Amino acid sequence: MIHVKVINPNTSRDMTEIIGSCAREVAAHVTAVSPAMGPASIESHYDEALAVPGILTELHGADAYVIACFGDPGLDAAREVADGPVIGIAEAAMHVATLVSRSFSVVTTLGRTVQRAWDLAERYGCEKACRGVHACEIPVLDLDDKALSVVAELAETALEKDGSEAIVLGCAGMGAYTKEIARRIDAPVIDGVQAAVTLAESLVKLRLTTSRRGEYASPPPKPYTGLLAGFEIK
Amino acid sequence: MIHVKVINPNTSRDMTEIIGSCAREVAAHVTAVSPAMGPASIESHYDEALAVPGILTELHGADAYVIACFGDPGLDAAREVADGPVIGIAEAAMHVATLVSRSFSVVTTLGRTVQRAWDLAERYGCEKACRGVHACEIPVLDLDDKALSVVAELAETALEKDGSEAIVLGCAGMGAYTKEIARRIDAPVIDGVQAAVTLAESLVKLRLTTSRRGEYASPPPKPYTGLLAGFEIK
Amino acid sequence: MIHVKVINPNTSRDMTEIIGSCAREVAAHVTAVSPAMGPASIESHYDEALAVPGILTELHGADAYVIACFGDPGLDAAREVADGPVIGIAEAAMHVATLVSRSFSVVTTLGRTVQRAWDLAERYGCEKACRGVHACEIPVLDLDDKALSVVAELAETALEKDGSEAIVLGCAGMGAYTKEIARRIDAPVIDGVQAAVTLAESLVKLRLTTSRRGEYASPPPKPYTGLLAGFEIK
Amino acid sequence: MIHVKVINPNTSRDMTEIIGSCAREVAAHVTAVSPAMGPASIESHYDEALAVPGILTELHGADAYVIACFGDPGLDAAREVADGPVIGIAEAAMHVATLVSRSFSVVTTLGRTVQRAWDLAERYGCEKACRGVHACEIPVLDLDDKALSVVAELAETALEKDGSEAIVLGCAGMGAYTKEIARRIDAPVIDGVQAAVTLAESLVKLRLTTSRRGEYASPPPKPYTGLLAGFEIK
Amino acid sequence: MIHVKVINPNTSRDMTEIIGSCAREVAAHVTAVSPAMGPASIESHYDEALAVPGILTELHGADAYVIACFGDPGLDAAREVADGPVIGIAEAAMHVATLVSRSFSVVTTLGRTVQRAWDLAERYGCEKACRGVHACEIPVLDLDDKALSVVAELAETALEKDGSEAIVLGCAGMGAYTKEIARRIDAPVIDGVQAAVTLAESLVKLRLTTSRRGEYASPPPKPYTGLLAGFEIK
Amino acid sequence: MIHVKVINPNTSRDMTEIIGSCAREVAAHVTAVSPAMGPASIESHYDEALAVPGILTELHGADAYVIACFGDPGLDAAREVADGPVIGIAEAAMHVATLVSRSFSVVTTLGRTVQRAWDLAERYGCEKACRGVHACEIPVLDLDDKALSVVAELAETALEKDGSEAIVLGCAGMGAYTKEIARRIDAPVIDGVQAAVTLAESLVKLRLTTSRRGEYASPPPKPYTGLLAGFEIK
Repeated sequence: MIHVKVINPNTSRDMTEIIGSCAREVAAHVTAVSPAMGPASIESHYDEALAVPGILTELHGADAYVIACFGDPGLDAAREVADGPVIGIAEAAMHVATLVSRSFSVVTTLGRTVQRAWDLAERYGCEKACRGVHACEIPVLDLDDKALSVVAELAETALEKDGSEAIVLGCAGMGAYTKEIARRIDAPVIDGVQAAVTLAESLVKLRLTTSRRGEYASPPPKPYTGLLAGFEIK
Repeated sequence: MIHVKVINPNTSRDMTEIIGSCAREVAAHVTAVSPAMGPASIESHYDEALAVPGILTELHGADAYVIACFGDPGLDAAREVADGPVIGIAEAAMHVATLVSRSFSVVTTLGRTVQRAWDLAERYGCEKACRGVHACEIPVLDLDDKALSVVAELAETALEKDGSEAIVLGCAGMGAYTKEIARRIDAPVIDGVQAAVTLAESLVKLRLTTSRRGEYASPPPKPYTGLLAGFEIK
Repeated sequence: MIHVKVINPNTSRDMTEIIGSCAREVAAHVTAVSPAMGPASIESHYDEALAVPGILTELHGADAYVIACFGDPGLDAAREVADGPVIGIAEAAMHVATLVSRSFSVVTTLGRTVQRAWDLAERYGCEKACRGVHACEIPVLDLDDKALSVVAELAETALEKDGSEAIVLGCAGMGAYTKEIARRIDAPVIDGVQAAVTLAESLVKLRLTTSRRGEYASPPPKPYTGLLAGFEIK
Repeated sequence: MIHVKVINPNTSRDMTEIIGSCAREVAAHVTAVSPAMGPASIESHYDEALAVPGILTELHGADAYVIACFGDPGLDAAREVADGPVIGIAEAAMHVATLVSRSFSVVTTLGRTVQRAWDLAERYGCEKACRGVHACEIPVLDLDDKALSVVAELAETALEKDGSEAIVLGCAGMGAYTKEIARRIDAPVIDGVQAAVTLAESLVKLRLTTSRRGEYASPPPKPYTGLLAGFEIK
Repeated sequence: MIHVKVINPNTSRDMTEIIGSCAREVAAHVTAVSPAMGPASIESHYDEALAVPGILTELHGADAYVIACFGDPGLDAAREVADGPVIGIAEAAMHVATLVSRSFSVVTTLGRTVQRAWDLAERYGCEKACRGVHACEIPVLDLDDKALSVVAELAETALEKDGSEAIVLGCAGMGAYTKEIARRIDAPVIDGVQAAVTLAESLVKLRLTTSRRGEYASPPPKPYTGLLAGFEIK
Repeated sequence: MIHVKVINPNTSRDMTEIIGSCAREVAAHVTAVSPAMGPASIESHYDEALAVPGILTELHGADAYVIACFGDPGLDAAREVADGPVIGIAEAAMHVATLVSRSFSVVTTLGRTVQRAWDLAERYGCEKACRGVHACEIPVLDLDDKALSVVAELAETALEKDGSEAIVLGCAGMGAYTKEIARRIDAPVIDGVQAAVTLAESLVKLRLTTSRRGEYASPPPKPYTGLLAGFEIK
């Protein structure tokens, strides 16, 4: 049975629980973890940068890894050191969206992350398929049941305004909304966590892992000092 | 158990057998078919256009569909009328390649199809990740055991020349080579058929199918006449 | 005298008449035909795919050929087998629009074809010049005199909203509107059929036809079976 | 009978003769002129900039205008003030090349103009179709019969090296070579002057001229002083 | 002390004064000039083309040169012949904007120049960072104190509508507004003249000037005749 | 006097010395520092990610900041929290290269960082100007006097092979080579550290700092735990 480890890059255990239970709906063997260091939520480049060390401590013990934050923090670094394939949830959600539509809209949390979503759309070759990124201005840790309606309405507006055909949920914390939003709107709704977990399983079935040629070769060892001395690779 | 129907768009039964057995290595319930009409192999725009009617007759009776020709013929039309998600093998292979590398090379059959591969790379947002498309100049139906070595060497040359990190096999008929080429070269080798089958299963697990908003809505019914009268949708 | 054959890819004779008479306004020797098989109108990828076999039966007997449907169906396949140059009407209209303006808007029939127009704009290098594609939601075969006003108003709105400088008519069936819309709005109005016919004549004057190097070389012969056996090239 | 005026932007009368006779091979009523001021040949941005005033004095008295230098100098300014459509020869050659091939190579004079050709390819939406720009390092005014063989060989090498399907001649002074090079190589050869003349005629037949909305509206009148006082528009 | 010569390409002395005094706020040794020939203001391609000869007469006697018109007229030609680095103000403003924001809006004078600003954004690699170009429809020479409020309000609207983070002033004549607009809106405001002057100084400090390899090599000498005979380079 | 702080993101003091002395050649008041934590050199995504926390501790006490590693690590996060403008050296070098040439080549250290340079070229709008990225395969900390000749020869080869016009040094540790390589080759050579320092001064002179609208607003405060608890912003 394929073992997928889902890493919630922030340190909020409640969110890790939700992410884990979403992931288990589509895969048999899932472990959901959050690192022992870093920010309680990820809402800035600053948070994202400081979530990466924690992520890098968790890339062992499974067949494949999912980074469960829509900014896909640390994805490149993770690919260099993980002992199996690594998938980001923005990456997964955007690829999957293009398999069921010609165009999608992203609904996300804070407006300040909108450009980050566009940057990722461009990195993943989706800058044409992505037609809009819409912020509900609800912080990650406030994505409770009340927020569901706000997000669902934003999704509906986004489809209409962008003339798009599918919705990508732009935060791991929105995963629990997937079914209900899909029920309310007439379009595919994609949760990056679930999408990433199924793609991670696919890679394992295909016996594929990160290429060690070129960019993702193992990092050259060297001294690390100070607070981060423990990250030295021997 | 998820049922994936793999459609070989040409009418060569031997090739359908090979495709089916590759697909079954990564999925539990696969049906492999070829249509009752059309060309014996697909090596031109002419062949590709005339393979589409046959494909359109096969899009029923399964949970998801794979079009097993690297030109992804008829993918848009198929999405309009199939009763489940449809994946092309070029589409699948290219997306999967980007999950395990930053760059890939395609090895394909005839030089005349090279531009088609580039067109698809662009459509799937892989025009930067795709670093080269290389033709072995062996026709589709001659892809036997002897051809394996030619393709393997071409793959090795392609990685070197393009500075790329993974190989995409540019023909469904190369699927049986995957393991052996992967053994010979130090890089991921991706067979579109296997990749597509696992993505098709992923979509079904995610309860996603083609959006009916916009481009892929069901076609408006209308009279069809002459040889193609049977394609009329009532 | 240069002989241009204009192929209406749908089977509606009335529309073929209109197309023919538009074409004759700008060229001396025009034949307008519609194939003996296929859909009565083209309003989906499904229709478009199934219009191609009919088109492929008509590519002989003239100096140059025009495919008179704004989706440019079968253009690549046609170029492989025609005995003279082949021009699509979207291709022609978009190229011509860039010769008299920096930017244009397309007015088309059904919203579901909007993305197709964008895809073609991109293929023809006009993705920056094309500023908007606007659907009047009138089916192809309902483009009568009453529809003219709707299309003319849409054209005016499009120019304003897109800040564009010219109008491209996005359906062969709108050709009869060209002069009247041009009279009503203060901008060039381009009918693809007329544009394509003059470009086809240009190519003949320049003694140019489709290159047989690379992508458009003659298709390799092979068996065709079933309903499509007649398409086999010996 | 449509009257096309072909403007050779340099002051070399011999070259104007050649350009005129090429143009007359494909059109019935052609006038070929060169301005009364400016450089003897155009081989730098400096030359190009200083060719423009001369061009601007010639935009009257015909149905359509062709600017016969492959840098398309002054095209935008000319469109603002000409009393009919204006076509550049790089513009015409590149558009026409895409109608008979998927890809082309440009053969040009001096290496220092290579980037200019790429800039124009991008402006005209041909940055993908253009696969290479190759300089023969022969100055414009030395393009005599002896130079023909050098250019023909360069064309052949370019097709091979770029994997392209057609040749665009990158200088108005190469027009007299067209037939001979086409005879020697197995691919379409496009002379921008001839291509532009047929496109200019096409626009007149289509009753189209430069849009006066937006960018190409008539320039606002204002004082001009010094050496250029004569260019003031009242 | 680094000497920067700022060339106002139009012949209006008042505007040259303003430009010079803006430039002197950020640099110690500035000369501001306007040429002895050409248009009183630049508001069309025609004006722009005819401003270039005048610019080309001024490229001597300093360490670096700034072309102070937002269309960056003659920049390529100037780089070929100047005896030091040359910077355009659109070029400078756009580069600087990307150093303090992810996105900017341009506020400019007449709507007919909007496309020119987009063309430059593309040339300078800012087509993604530039989110909007907005015209106040005030002619260059009417940019007085009263116009300041119109431009300031347009800037505010632009930031809001485009969701952008900085303002680029799209005309050298707006330089005197910089501080006041920056005071009114909560975002960086960039005057191209000041930006260009500091970049020009930077290049001199870095001991860098225009590369003479390839495109900007010195123009080959040749005869010039007529009104422009004086521009001949011996 | 403008105070620029140059942050060497690795912990090697010798390299910090070299960087500081390069910077002082072009600016009056420079402080060069390296952080108290992190990797001894930066040669992988892993190193780069783990260099960021150290960088984030140094963004105070000056008028402007330079991140002196060619991967521009942490640039976005730094812009959110620094009390003045922040410039990356790849960013600076690439922008400056486009001011003195149409095209440049990058010479860098290890092949595994080549794609990173391309990613940055794309981010900074230089994907067309950048014509090649060439690795000398010398590790960062081995860039001594002996390595200079290797890098100089690589630069010469790069100009030739890429047909480019300028050289960008792809590592802060190459700064001391700038003058000597410029002496040997006939093209501008750009050191990112020096370029960034002059741009940083320019921004201060222009009274510009990072926009707080949108993406670079101050990060929302939140709990940080574990090893990184000290990074919490109150």
